[in-house]
Amino acid sequence: MRIALGLEYDGSQFCGWQSQPSACGAQDHLQSALARLAGHDIKVAAAGRTDAGVHALTQVVHFDTEAVRPQSAWVRGANAFLPPGLRVLWAQEVDTEFHARFSAERRSYQYLLQVSPVAPAVLSGKVGWYHRPLDIEAMQQAAKHLPGEHDFSAFRAAECQAKSPVKQLYCAEVSRHGEFILFEFRANAFLHHMVRNLVGSLVYIGKGEYPSGWIAELLQQKDRTRAAPTFAPDGLYLTGVHYDTRWGLPPCERGLDGVILP
Amino acid sequence: MRIALGLEYDGSQFCGWQSQPSACGAQDHLQSALARLAGHDIKVAAAGRTDAGVHALTQVVHFDTEAVRPQSAWVRGANAFLPPGLRVLWAQEVDTEFHARFSAERRSYQYLLQVSPVAPAVLSGKVGWYHRPLDIEAMQQAAKHLPGEHDFSAFRAAECQAKSPVKQLYCAEVSRHGEFILFEFRANAFLHHMVRNLVGSLVYIGKGEYPSGWIAELLQQKDRTRAAPTFAPDGLYLTGVHYDTRWGLPPCERGLDGVILP
Repeated sequence: MRIALGLEYDGSQFCGWQSQPSACGAQDHLQSALARLAGHDIKVAAAGRTDAGVHALTQVVHFDTEAVRPQSAWVRGANAFLPPGLRVLWAQEVDTEFHARFSAERRSYQYLLQVSPVAPAVLSGKVGWYHRPLDIEAMQQAAKHLPGEHDFSAFRAAECQAKSPVKQLYCAEVSRHGEFILFEFRANAFLHHMVRNLVGSLVYIGKGEYPSGWIAELLQQKDRTRAAPTFAPDGLYLTGVHYDTRWGLPPCERGLDGVILP
Repeated sequence: MRIALGLEYDGSQFCGWQSQPSACGAQDHLQSALARLAGHDIKVAAAGRTDAGVHALTQVVHFDTEAVRPQSAWVRGANAFLPPGLRVLWAQEVDTEFHARFSAERRSYQYLLQVSPVAPAVLSGKVGWYHRPLDIEAMQQAAKHLPGEHDFSAFRAAECQAKSPVKQLYCAEVSRHGEFILFEFRANAFLHHMVRNLVGSLVYIGKGEYPSGWIAELLQQKDRTRAAPTFAPDGLYLTGVHYDTRWGLPPCERGLDGVILP
């Protein structure tokens, strides 16, 4: 039997999503909790592997098990064994053809940036921070160059394992919420560090170091060394994974609005 | 020279405000950072001593020093030495008659409670949590019994060191914000655990275990054992300290609205 789970986690409490020899990955904690419930080893596959410090408001995983449990038991049982920074939101039996990663058609990320003279304390690790005012209109203009099918090599980490740097970006938006700036991205898939690299270059434009059109040049040049450095993981959230409705999953989109965003 | 500081901190990263032999208190970190800046030992006095796990959006402290530094240096210098969960918001030279604790005329606290089937992960430690719907109108009715001068013994921790259990409560409000409930309290001073004990009893009323009028009975009976257990520290924030304008301090009120509240 194949079970899909929706997860929320605080990335600052783990060394990333992926399982590690030292068992510090969010995946390690989840697999260990599920194994206690199932009575056998469990291996989960996730829609997206988030880096250390990156959060998820909706991550989707699946696993196979012979254990027969009510769906509510997978939620409440796992949560009883998990650390507070990792929660199972829902569980759903799915067709064995379903794969959390390969069936995913789109992913959504949001990046929350606080702009204030002093860094956040209560939300340290939960939001990115920049100490001086940013030109939001310039960043909004720049973001308009991003949607479409592009070679995103300028925003790709050296260690990225994706087969192709060409991705279809459906949405890139920048909005202001009080002293926060929210960046939203939706694509069929993302390259390694792609959102943090895009945010870094948009912030360079917001600072006035480059004009809005610089982002289009970066896309054309396909040269990582010309773009801005990778921005901090702190404010980055995996906020949704889109699957075909035939899989019958609960809603897998859950943004910062209503969760943390003022 | 006497300097007042405004502070924000994440209480989950310290063993409370107060200095401890193991130096795990927020006060220890602050004193150590200030001593490095001043070149001599520094002892700070705070408006309110918050418990382990309790946060502050505005805590006010003062200290005496012979070191002459621009006010901005006390902010940026201290922040360079402080852990990310503790930030100095502002610094202001004050009259030596000023005392962060004894000059304070009122304190404000807010408690943020998430009501949802699954506990928060990203905001774990930052908000309280209850798993079932609460009757907000009943809690609002109950809160109306609280303002005024009362003997708050029913909501006082056994280890409370206050001289008198009689406090003047100026405001007690309950409001809904999406899946959050916000409790706000303002008083001349608070007894130990008073806000968490008030929230605990209001939640009992919200659950339907007691009618709204129960809170008035508890006040009259002055018996801690009849009230609800102390609620978790996670969602509690010191949000303001009020001083006479003659001290010339920056605004010392800063609530969750715009900082963390959706």
